[in-house]
Amino acid sequence: MSEFNLIQRYFAHLGASRAEVVLGVGDDAALVAGPGNTQLAIALDTMVEGVHFPVGTAPFELGFKALAVNLSDLAAMGAQPVWATLGLTLPEKNEQWLADFSAGMGFLASKYQLQLIGGDTTRGPLTITVQVAGSLPSGQALLRSGAKPGDLVFVSGQIGDAHLGLKQVLGALPIQVPHSVQRLHQPEPRVALGLALRGLASSCIDVSDGLLADMAHILAASGVGARIYPSLLQLSAEVKTHFALLGGWQGVLNGGDDYELCFTAPAERQSQILALADTLRLRISCIGEIVSQPGLVCLDEHDQPMAIHGAGYDHFREA
Amino acid sequence: MSEFNLIQRYFAHLGASRAEVVLGVGDDAALVAGPGNTQLAIALDTMVEGVHFPVGTAPFELGFKALAVNLSDLAAMGAQPVWATLGLTLPEKNEQWLADFSAGMGFLASKYQLQLIGGDTTRGPLTITVQVAGSLPSGQALLRSGAKPGDLVFVSGQIGDAHLGLKQVLGALPIQVPHSVQRLHQPEPRVALGLALRGLASSCIDVSDGLLADMAHILAASGVGARIYPSLLQLSAEVKTHFALLGGWQGVLNGGDDYELCFTAPAERQSQILALADTLRLRISCIGEIVSQPGLVCLDEHDQPMAIHGAGYDHFREA
Repeated sequence: MSEFNLIQRYFAHLGASRAEVVLGVGDDAALVAGPGNTQLAIALDTMVEGVHFPVGTAPFELGFKALAVNLSDLAAMGAQPVWATLGLTLPEKNEQWLADFSAGMGFLASKYQLQLIGGDTTRGPLTITVQVAGSLPSGQALLRSGAKPGDLVFVSGQIGDAHLGLKQVLGALPIQVPHSVQRLHQPEPRVALGLALRGLASSCIDVSDGLLADMAHILAASGVGARIYPSLLQLSAEVKTHFALLGGWQGVLNGGDDYELCFTAPAERQSQILALADTLRLRISCIGEIVSQPGLVCLDEHDQPMAIHGAGYDHFREA
Repeated sequence: MSEFNLIQRYFAHLGASRAEVVLGVGDDAALVAGPGNTQLAIALDTMVEGVHFPVGTAPFELGFKALAVNLSDLAAMGAQPVWATLGLTLPEKNEQWLADFSAGMGFLASKYQLQLIGGDTTRGPLTITVQVAGSLPSGQALLRSGAKPGDLVFVSGQIGDAHLGLKQVLGALPIQVPHSVQRLHQPEPRVALGLALRGLASSCIDVSDGLLADMAHILAASGVGARIYPSLLQLSAEVKTHFALLGGWQGVLNGGDDYELCFTAPAERQSQILALADTLRLRISCIGEIVSQPGLVCLDEHDQPMAIHGAGYDHFREA
C-alpha cells in the first residue's frame, strides 16, 4: 500500500460531509466555497529532514521550497495564491536559521503576492508543513479527472533536473550541475501557466513524484490511458549530458521534484497552448495523446513500446 | 525570546498584504474572507512526539487531541468548525496505528460536523499538524484585543487537570487520576460556548499554555491589566486532592493543556453569561476584573496579592 493509498484509505472520508466543501481528498488541492463567486483551492505539503531534503540544506532554500511545492499544487488547480499557514518544527532556536528560512519563504510569498496569516513554531525534528489557499472562479478549477480520449498531453519546462541535482547534493556525481541543483532547491511554481490554462486544459497535475506516476493519477481519475513519446520532452543540457547516469528515460520519467505541470487539452487548442509558451517564456512540450484504452504506454521514435515502468516516489516504500 | 516572539518576529509580516485577509498572525486564529457575509477563522497547531505528548500515547487519543486543540482555537474565536487538513509524519506504515488515529480524529470531526478535505502523509519522526477552518458572521469574531477596564474575567470548566494528568502519565504520581488523564488526552473543545459568546464577550482566548500566560495575551492585546481571585476557580476533586503536589496555585495557574476558554465581558452581561453555564451544562467561573493599570495581579480571599508569577509553557525555554 503506497503513501497515496494511505491518505485515501484512512483520511478521505473522515468527519462530516459539508456543503461548503466542493472537492475533498484526491486532487492536487481540495476546493471549498470562497468569497463571492469564487472557490478556494486548499493544499498542504510536509517536508521532513532526511526524507524530503538532505540534512544541512540551507534554510533559505527550505523556506523557498516549502512554499514552492504548495504553490505548485495551486498552479495545478489553476488557482491564484492568496494566503498560507506554516507549521514549523525545529530542533533549536537558531535565530540566523530562522531569519534565513523566513527570507526564503518571504521571497516567494512576495513574488506571488501571498500573505502568511498564521503558524505554529514547535521544538522537535526538523519538519515543515505549509498549507496554502488559492482563489479561482467557481467551477473553473483544473482537475485530474477531465482528460478525454483524443486530448493531447503537454508538459511544461524541463524534467529530470531536480533528480540530477539531488544526485549531486548526495555526492553521487563526479562533476557540478549547478543548474540542476538550483532546480532542486528552488523550483519555480508554474502559477502563471496554471492561471492561463483555465478554460483551455481538460486536466492538470503537478509533476512532483515523477512524470509517469503523476500522469498515472490523471489517467486513473479520468478513466483513460495515454500514449506518450518521451523523445518529445525538452531536456536541459545537464540532463542530456548525464542521461545515462540518470538511468536513461527510466530515470528521467520517474525522477521527482521537478514541479512542472502535466496537462491535457483538446487537440484544437494546441496552437493556443503553444502560444502560451511564448507569452510566458516557458517551454511547453506536446508529448502524446490520451486514448480510451487504460494504461500508460511510452513509445520511441519508431512507434515501438519502450521498456519503461513507472515507480513514483513513495517515502514508505523506500523506507 | 519565547516561542510566541519567534512567530511574531520572523513570520508575522511575511509576504504581501492581501485584501482577503482580515486578521493575520497574533490571535487564536487568523481571519480571512469567506462565502457570503462570513469570515473564515484559520488556525494551525503542531504536536510533536516527546514534546507535546509522551512517546507511546495511544493513536486514538492523538487523533482526537490533534483536532481538539485546533477546534479549541476556533472556539476561542467564536467560529463554527467547517473543514480541516492534516499533515501527518510517522515513522512507519502501521495500519492499526493509522486506523486508530483516524478513528480518534474522525470521532471528534463527526461530533463537530467538520470535514477533512486534504492532507499529506510522510515518513519521519511522529509529528502531527492540523489546520482547521471555522465560519462566523463577518465582524463577530471574539478577539484577544477587546477587553476593557471594568469588564469581568471568566473561565470555563476546570483547570489544572491536564497538568495533573500529565504527571500521572509521566509516572510522577503515587495514585491514579483517571479523570485528569482523560482531560489531558481528550480535551473537550468549548465550541458551543464560543459560539454562544459572540456578541456577549469582549475578548476571548483558549487556555492552552496556562491560565496566567494566556490571560497575559488578552491583557497585552487589549492594553489593560487584571485583578483575579484564583480561589474563585472551580477545581476538580482530583486537583483539590493533589493541590500541593501540583505546586499549589503556582502550578494550577501555569499548567497547560486544559483547553478551556478564558474571556471577558461587560459586568452587565454577567447574568446572561452565567445562564449560559446552565444551558450548556458547563461550569463558568467569574474570577476577577479588567483594570486599566497594566499587569496581572492574583489576590487571595483577603484581597492581598499572592506570590505567583506566570510561566506559560514554552517548548524552547524548556529545551
